[in-house]
Amino acid sequence: MFAPQCPARQVPVQVGDKWTAMVVICLEGGPRRFGELLVPLRSITKKVLAETLRAMERDGMVTRREFPANPPHVEYELTPLGRSLLTLIDAARDWCEEHLPDLIEARRAHSAA
Amino acid sequence: MFAPQCPARQVPVQVGDKWTAMVVICLEGGPRRFGELLVPLRSITKKVLAETLRAMERDGMVTRREFPANPPHVEYELTPLGRSLLTLIDAARDWCEEHLPDLIEARRAHSAA
Repeated sequence: MFAPQCPARQVPVQVGDKWTAMVVICLEGGPRRFGELLVPLRSITKKVLAETLRAMERDGMVTRREFPANPPHVEYELTPLGRSLLTLIDAARDWCEEHLPDLIEARRAHSAA
Repeated sequence: MFAPQCPARQVPVQVGDKWTAMVVICLEGGPRRFGELLVPLRSITKKVLAETLRAMERDGMVTRREFPANPPHVEYELTPLGRSLLTLIDAARDWCEEHLPDLIEARRAHSAA
């Protein structure tokens, strides 16, 4: 889903920390387990995903819910505040669709000069 | 203008590098000289402002124009691409007006727990 070589990596907008926007997108459809977040995020490590989720919990963006089933598991869910970041992510996406090619072209022309 | 202790520093959105959005806002009204940018940006150093402007030039966000007057001076101006960042900055501002207090309150409650 989030390929490291994707041009989106050149986007001049960042929502939250490095991975926050991608976690928000992964949680948009509903609660997910830790392991279910690891898969689409691809190049993230378990340590960094855990740190990202902890920071988002601290900021009131996600809630963490423990299920004492056997085996026990944990689910993460967006709060309304976390979901509100989607408006910013959408604005960034719209900007990129319209303008990112110009930015990439400017960089290319500059490095060729 | 951009006070270091301003709650805006906690905003979970960043447009460009650390200072890019503030430079865009300073240039919104028209071309400015280097020294005219230093004043409102306050805690920025000359070195970092020069680096920020160079990166924005490389990305096609600003143009740099030399005036061979006596003494010579240089003016920076937003390109249409640079000006397009204002839509993102406005979206971030709207988000903050509506949601930043919730984020700050979540952090406060978390650090008190």
